[in-house]
Amino acid sequence: MNDSQKMLHPVSLVGAGPGDPELMTVRALKRIEAADVLLCDALVDPRVLTLARADARVLQVGKRGFKPSTDQRFIHELMIREARKGARVVRLKGGDPFVFGRGGEEADALRAAGIEVEIVSGLTSGLAGPAGLGIPVTDRRCTPGVALVTGHNGEGGRSPDWAALARSGLTLVVYMGVTQAADIAAALLAAGMQADTPAAVVCAAHTAQQREFLCTLATLPDTIAREQVKAPALLVIGEVVALAPAWRAAIEAAQDPAREARWNN
Amino acid sequence: MNDSQKMLHPVSLVGAGPGDPELMTVRALKRIEAADVLLCDALVDPRVLTLARADARVLQVGKRGFKPSTDQRFIHELMIREARKGARVVRLKGGDPFVFGRGGEEADALRAAGIEVEIVSGLTSGLAGPAGLGIPVTDRRCTPGVALVTGHNGEGGRSPDWAALARSGLTLVVYMGVTQAADIAAALLAAGMQADTPAAVVCAAHTAQQREFLCTLATLPDTIAREQVKAPALLVIGEVVALAPAWRAAIEAAQDPAREARWNN
Repeated sequence: MNDSQKMLHPVSLVGAGPGDPELMTVRALKRIEAADVLLCDALVDPRVLTLARADARVLQVGKRGFKPSTDQRFIHELMIREARKGARVVRLKGGDPFVFGRGGEEADALRAAGIEVEIVSGLTSGLAGPAGLGIPVTDRRCTPGVALVTGHNGEGGRSPDWAALARSGLTLVVYMGVTQAADIAAALLAAGMQADTPAAVVCAAHTAQQREFLCTLATLPDTIAREQVKAPALLVIGEVVALAPAWRAAIEAAQDPAREARWNN
Repeated sequence: MNDSQKMLHPVSLVGAGPGDPELMTVRALKRIEAADVLLCDALVDPRVLTLARADARVLQVGKRGFKPSTDQRFIHELMIREARKGARVVRLKGGDPFVFGRGGEEADALRAAGIEVEIVSGLTSGLAGPAGLGIPVTDRRCTPGVALVTGHNGEGGRSPDWAALARSGLTLVVYMGVTQAADIAAALLAAGMQADTPAAVVCAAHTAQQREFLCTLATLPDTIAREQVKAPALLVIGEVVALAPAWRAAIEAAQDPAREARWNN
């Protein structure tokens, strides 16, 4: 390591949280305010970027879905180049940098280039999104825990074992599951999960565009189709969904007598 | 609802995050600063409480382990009584109020008493703790996701299906698993999980008392016994643990030739 390298700032992989800037951590806010360069994901809420210095460079490096992985190498090279110039680099990611989103690969690339890495965790939408609907995803009256899983393995990753997850008794929170929702629901039903298991779809949680829909495992695919749900959206599947105040209100309003009967049993 | 009830403030169930006050959200900080009364869990870091107003009342209502559930009813009654007096009540919980810790039950009790509830999500130690060690719990090179599960069901909750979790391919993060670690490891091994699956124990993550140990699934119980690990601690089990810089450094230092050989294959 030469002298100029010793002076380099660590690169911060910062979780911007789900959307609303008040849901960022104090440390994330500090890193954003101090940054010379910010490399931002598509999922970072625009309100968050207004917190950067006026003279900071904000580089949009977002991508969505099934694009080739060369994009990812470009992001690595850009972070390394800026850090080697001595810039304070913030890699800003929606949610938490280590809950999906390739933070691990980016940290590896930086370390391999001899650059220090700081991880600033953020609220992941898979927990904060359901909480915004009043859904306590690990409520002990319903479940021993929660699984945060990806709904597509389009880029070489392993697919979840839906049958094992159905048997686990955990609340399931599926990220990136919109396009695969019909297959996921079918796999869970085939593994023995009840058709009337409460479910929710949360679109763009904690952003100005948030929408949410309550349904059941069986009606989840139709709900997504009917409401024209697009990414980013979360699927939440499990008895805990029935603890949401909106679910209970719907029961009380007797909008669904079949579900009401079940609730009372 | 009478006029005085209409004037009541909502009770905020606030996640204080894992420890370090900088890991709280901006909204959590605002609620703590504005609170007249704070009801605090044992797991809330003492540094967080210094952020409350000098004239705020801080009530320690923490408990640990297997105490009777009357304590919980007392907490409900205290929140309701203070809220009905017109106080700004913050129920401050370590981590996230809806990831274990009975936030759902407390929200229900408040709503049943006609008091509005606000959920302020916080960073849960089960994600921020591993991240602090550089462990990306959902890294797509290793796993399709992460399960956050409770290690004991001492108060009527359901136990995780360890065999299903072993088959799921998910990273496992076990809360409250110290006393049951030997049984959990045995159940996972019996279900076919590899004995040399990388594992970590993170004690008191992001507090001044943090300690961490890297081991394998097979050596997890001995590690806990040898290091005299006490709650609060997390167990992290899965290939992602081998992505931690400390794990790689240990491999490079050839402290464990057997594991080194495996890493290279």
